[in-house]
Amino acid sequence: MNRLIANAPLKGIIPPLVTPLSDNDTLDTAGLENLIERLIAGGVHGLFILGTTGEAQSISYNLRRRMIEETSRINGRRLPLLVCISDTSITESINLANIAAGCGADAVVSAPPYYYAPSQEELAGFYHDLADRLPLPLFLYNMPSHTKVSFAPGTVRRIAEHKNVIGFKDSSANAVYFQSVLTAMAGRPDFSMMVGPEEMTAEIVLMGGHGGINGGANLFPGLYVNLYHAAVAGNLEEVRRLQKIVMLISTTLYTVGKYGSSYLKGVKCALGLLGVCNDHLAAPCYKFEEPEKERIREALNHLQFTIRPFTI
Amino acid sequence: MNRLIANAPLKGIIPPLVTPLSDNDTLDTAGLENLIERLIAGGVHGLFILGTTGEAQSISYNLRRRMIEETSRINGRRLPLLVCISDTSITESINLANIAAGCGADAVVSAPPYYYAPSQEELAGFYHDLADRLPLPLFLYNMPSHTKVSFAPGTVRRIAEHKNVIGFKDSSANAVYFQSVLTAMAGRPDFSMMVGPEEMTAEIVLMGGHGGINGGANLFPGLYVNLYHAAVAGNLEEVRRLQKIVMLISTTLYTVGKYGSSYLKGVKCALGLLGVCNDHLAAPCYKFEEPEKERIREALNHLQFTIRPFTI
Amino acid sequence: MNRLIANAPLKGIIPPLVTPLSDNDTLDTAGLENLIERLIAGGVHGLFILGTTGEAQSISYNLRRRMIEETSRINGRRLPLLVCISDTSITESINLANIAAGCGADAVVSAPPYYYAPSQEELAGFYHDLADRLPLPLFLYNMPSHTKVSFAPGTVRRIAEHKNVIGFKDSSANAVYFQSVLTAMAGRPDFSMMVGPEEMTAEIVLMGGHGGINGGANLFPGLYVNLYHAAVAGNLEEVRRLQKIVMLISTTLYTVGKYGSSYLKGVKCALGLLGVCNDHLAAPCYKFEEPEKERIREALNHLQFTIRPFTI
Amino acid sequence: MNRLIANAPLKGIIPPLVTPLSDNDTLDTAGLENLIERLIAGGVHGLFILGTTGEAQSISYNLRRRMIEETSRINGRRLPLLVCISDTSITESINLANIAAGCGADAVVSAPPYYYAPSQEELAGFYHDLADRLPLPLFLYNMPSHTKVSFAPGTVRRIAEHKNVIGFKDSSANAVYFQSVLTAMAGRPDFSMMVGPEEMTAEIVLMGGHGGINGGANLFPGLYVNLYHAAVAGNLEEVRRLQKIVMLISTTLYTVGKYGSSYLKGVKCALGLLGVCNDHLAAPCYKFEEPEKERIREALNHLQFTIRPFTI
Repeated sequence: MNRLIANAPLKGIIPPLVTPLSDNDTLDTAGLENLIERLIAGGVHGLFILGTTGEAQSISYNLRRRMIEETSRINGRRLPLLVCISDTSITESINLANIAAGCGADAVVSAPPYYYAPSQEELAGFYHDLADRLPLPLFLYNMPSHTKVSFAPGTVRRIAEHKNVIGFKDSSANAVYFQSVLTAMAGRPDFSMMVGPEEMTAEIVLMGGHGGINGGANLFPGLYVNLYHAAVAGNLEEVRRLQKIVMLISTTLYTVGKYGSSYLKGVKCALGLLGVCNDHLAAPCYKFEEPEKERIREALNHLQFTIRPFTI
Repeated sequence: MNRLIANAPLKGIIPPLVTPLSDNDTLDTAGLENLIERLIAGGVHGLFILGTTGEAQSISYNLRRRMIEETSRINGRRLPLLVCISDTSITESINLANIAAGCGADAVVSAPPYYYAPSQEELAGFYHDLADRLPLPLFLYNMPSHTKVSFAPGTVRRIAEHKNVIGFKDSSANAVYFQSVLTAMAGRPDFSMMVGPEEMTAEIVLMGGHGGINGGANLFPGLYVNLYHAAVAGNLEEVRRLQKIVMLISTTLYTVGKYGSSYLKGVKCALGLLGVCNDHLAAPCYKFEEPEKERIREALNHLQFTIRPFTI
Repeated sequence: MNRLIANAPLKGIIPPLVTPLSDNDTLDTAGLENLIERLIAGGVHGLFILGTTGEAQSISYNLRRRMIEETSRINGRRLPLLVCISDTSITESINLANIAAGCGADAVVSAPPYYYAPSQEELAGFYHDLADRLPLPLFLYNMPSHTKVSFAPGTVRRIAEHKNVIGFKDSSANAVYFQSVLTAMAGRPDFSMMVGPEEMTAEIVLMGGHGGINGGANLFPGLYVNLYHAAVAGNLEEVRRLQKIVMLISTTLYTVGKYGSSYLKGVKCALGLLGVCNDHLAAPCYKFEEPEKERIREALNHLQFTIRPFTI
Repeated sequence: MNRLIANAPLKGIIPPLVTPLSDNDTLDTAGLENLIERLIAGGVHGLFILGTTGEAQSISYNLRRRMIEETSRINGRRLPLLVCISDTSITESINLANIAAGCGADAVVSAPPYYYAPSQEELAGFYHDLADRLPLPLFLYNMPSHTKVSFAPGTVRRIAEHKNVIGFKDSSANAVYFQSVLTAMAGRPDFSMMVGPEEMTAEIVLMGGHGGINGGANLFPGLYVNLYHAAVAGNLEEVRRLQKIVMLISTTLYTVGKYGSSYLKGVKCALGLLGVCNDHLAAPCYKFEEPEKERIREALNHLQFTIRPFTI
C-alpha cells in the first residue's frame, strides 16, 4: 500500500526542493545530492520537488524528468517523495505523474492550470478528470498569486471526495482562508492540511493543521523541524523563540531587491554561499550578482551565528 | 494620563460596533444601548466605533458625530473607547478626532485615505502630519481590500516613531504580513498589535499578538473573550474547541449571498433577529430580505444551540 | 429648461478643473480665476469641478462648497457647469448636489461609493435612490481604479432609464468596455458618452462618442478642442498630428516619479510653472519639489515650443 | 528573405485560429482544413496559430507540433504564418520555434512566461536571450490578464532594438497603453502594432495602428477584413456601420455564461454550429452544452441575417 495513504495524513516539514542548475538546461547533480543529504540529516518528513521553489515551470520537460529520476535515486525511498505536476495541459500533467510513479514517488501535487483561469465548476471538473487518470495519490496546491485562481473551500471538499485526493497545500498566506478550508475538511481527519509560507507554519500547526512545505527548510532544515515539533507539543515559548529566527530569515534573505522572485533568488543565492549547490536560476529569473549577493552573505553570516544550534 | 497609554499595549477583544440605524440618516439609539450593554456584559476589553463594520463611510458627518456622542454617553467611561476617523480628507479626519476627544474617547484609529492610493512615502508623510495634529493617541488600520494600499512593515515602524502612534490593526488576513509587522515592531513592547478577522485572532495571540477587533463580538461577545483568554493561557485544546464555533459563525452567517458585504449584512441581520438593534444598512449596502433572512435565522438557531454557554 | 437637457447630448472638451489651493484648507481664488478664463478663452465646451483631478476627496466639505461657489461666480453661466458629487455617503452627495443647484450648476456627476465595493444590483439601487433625490441631471462616472467597481454595461442602461440620468464618463481606459457601453446605450442618442483619458478622446469621437473630460485641457485647452474638432470632422491627418502632441504631454508631464498620482502632480506643477495657479496638492498627495519640478519645467519648455499654435 | 521582414510592417486582419479538436489529444484535421479555407476565402492577411484563442497552453506539445505541421501543410505558403510559442520555459519556446521554422512559418509570437511574473528588467533580459536564439522573427505579445505582467512601453522599445523583433500584439484592451507603446515606437515605421480585441481594431487603425489579431475573424473573416479596409480608407460612416456588427458579435456570442473563457466557448460553439469544425475545448475549459448552446444558436441566427453580405 502507498506509504502516504497508509500513514495519512502526511505531517511535518516537507521542503520544496530548489532544482540545482548549472545552467538553464543542466541539472547540478552533485548539488542535488548535497541538498538531499542535508535535508535528510535535518530530520525533514518528506521531499517535495518541482514546485514553485523548484522552478519547474522554467525548465524543460526533459530536465523535469531528470530531476524526478535523480531525486528518486538519491533518496532511495528514505523519505516520502512528492512530485509537483502542475501544468497548463492535463496531458502533460499526466505524463509527469506517470514518470513520477515509474520512479517510485509517493504522491503528486497539482496547482490549477495557470494560463486560463478556470471557474470553480471547471476546477472541480478538471481535478475530477485528473484524479481519475493519475497513478498516484494527489495533493491540491493553492497558489493564487501565480495561478490567478483560488480553490473555494467548497471546491476543495468536492474534489476531495475522490479517493485519490489526500491533501492540500495552501500558499495563499491568508489565515482566514486556511481556517475556512480546515473547517470545510473537518470531517476528513486523514486529509493533510499544509501551508507553503514558513512564516505561518507554527500557527497553523497550533490550530490543528499538519505542517509546512517551507522553502527555508532548504537552508536550515533543523530549524523548521524543531519549530514544527515545538508547535505540535504546544510549547509556546519555544515556538515564539524559533519563530523569531524564521522571521529573521524571511525579512533578510527573502527581501533583497524588489523582485516578485526575491524569495527564490535569496534561497538559491544562500544555498550557493553555503556551498550546497549552484545558485543559477532559470530564465525568466536571474541569479543575484554583487552587490545583492553581498547583502545575502551578510544576512547569512548574521543568521548562522543566531541559528547555529539548528543547522546541521 | 490617557488610559490607553498608561496601560499600553491595548489587549483583548475590542468589538467594532455596528452603527444601529433606523434609516440612512437616523441612529437607532435604543439599539445602540442594547448593543453596548450586551458587549460590556460579555466582558469585552474596549469599544471601537465607526470602523468598516460601523459603516462610517456610508453615513453623514452629522450621524457620525451623533454616534460618537451617544456611544460615549452610554459607555460612560466604563471601557476604553476607540473612534475610527478614516477619511479621504485629513481635515475631516481631524474634525472627527476633535469631536471624539471632546466626548472623552481614548484613542482614534485611521485607515489610509481610500480614494487616491498613496505611495509608502506619502503614507508616512500623511500620518506624520496627522499624528502631529491629533488630540488623541492613534492606531493605524491596515485594510487593503478597501483602501487599495497596504502599510509596508517598514512604514509602520517609521510612522510609529511618532509618540502619538500606539497600535496597529491589521485586516489584511495575511498571516505572513502580520508576522512581518510584528517583527518590524519587535522593539516596541508597548505597541498594540491587533487583527481584524476573528478567524485568526486565536493564532495571532498564540504567536504573541495582542487581540482582535472582531465583528462577530457584536453578536456573541463572550465567545470571543473566552477564545482570547484560552489563547493567552496557551490552552490549545480549548482554543481549538472555541475556534470551531468561530468558524461555524464565519462560514454560515457571513457567506449568505455573494456580496462583498455579505459579512456586514449577516451581522446586522443577526443582530436584528436577536432583538439587539435594527437591521437597516446604509446605502450602498442593503439589508437582507427574505429568503436570505431565513438562511440567517436558521444559521442563528443552530449557532445559539451550539454556543449557548458563551452567549450572554 | 436645464441647458444640458435642452442641448443633449453634451459634447466636446470639458476640462476637469484642478482645485487651486494655497494650502490644504485654502482656495487659491486668483488662480481659479486665471484658470477659468484660460479655459474659456481656449474654447472648451463646459467646466467640470471636484472630480478626481480636482482632488475633491482630499479637501474638506467647506472647501468643496467654496470651490462650487467661486467657480459658479467666475463662470457666470458662460459655460455649462458640472459638479462632481462623488462620496461614500449618499447623504453627503445629496448635500453637495443641493449646494451645486443653489449656485446654478447645470448637472452633477457621481462615481460609485468608493469604500465598500457595491454589487451591480446595489449600484443600480444606489443610483436609483440618488437620481430620485437630486435637484439636477446626473452623469455617471466610471473610475474603477479608484472605486474598485465598474458599471456593467447593462447596469448603465438600467440606471439610465431614470429620466435624470443624462450621460456617462468612463475613465477605465478600456476601449472594449467603452464600446460595450456605447452599444448598450445605442438606443439613446441624447445620452452623452464621454471619456476621461485624453489619450483616447480622438479615437472614441471617431467611433461615435461625444468627447473628453480631459485633465490636460487645464494646461492647453486649445489643443484638445482642436483635436476634438478634427475628430468630429473626420480629418484623420490632423487628428494624428495633434494626437502626437497629446501623447508627448502624456508621456512627459504625467510620468515623473512613479506615483499613482504622477499625473496629478504633473498637471499642478505645470500649472504653477505656467503662472496659472498655485501648485499645492492636498494630502495624501504632495507637490513636486526639485528635482522632479525641473523635469516638468524641461518637458514644458519643450512642449510649449511644439504646441505654441494651440496654446492660448 | 523572410516575407514578413520584406513587407514590414505586417498589417491587416490576422485571425488567431482556434485549434479544432476531436478530444483533448486529437486534432480535428478536417475542421482545420475547413477553417483555413474559410479564412483565406475571407481575405485575411495572415494566419496566427497556438495563441490564447488556440488553447495552446491546454494541449500537449505533441499536439502543438501537429497543429503547426498541419496548418503549414494546408496553408501551403498562401498566407504568412505566425506561430505562438508562449511558454513558461525558454527551452520549450525555442523548441517550438524550431519546429515552426522547419515547417516554413514566417514568424513566431511570444507572451511573457506566465507562472513567475518577471520584472521589466527580467522581461528585457528574457527577450534578449530568446530573440538571440530564435530561427524566425519575433512578435511580442502583451496579455496581462493571463500573464500577470505588462510590457512597459520603454521595455517594448528596448526589446525591439534587437533586429529579430518586428512587431507587437496588445491584448490589454487599454487604449491609453496602446497609444503609449505607439508613441514609444514612433521612430520605427517598420514595426507592426496590432491589437487583439476586435472591438478596438477599427479605432487603432484610424489612429495609425496596423491591424487586428481578432478572434471573431475565425467566424466571419470578411467582416473584419472589410472593417479594416474601411478604417484604412478613413471611411468613418462605413467603419461605424460595421463596428455595430462587431459589437453585436461581441455582446451576444462572447457573453454567454459568466466564465473567464466565455469568449472562447462562444467562438468554438459557433464554429461547431456553422459546420466549420468540432466544438470541443481542451481542459480546463469545457464546451457549451444546452441551454448555453441554444443561446449561441439564436445569437448566430440573428447575426447571420445581419451580416450576410460579409460572410463568405
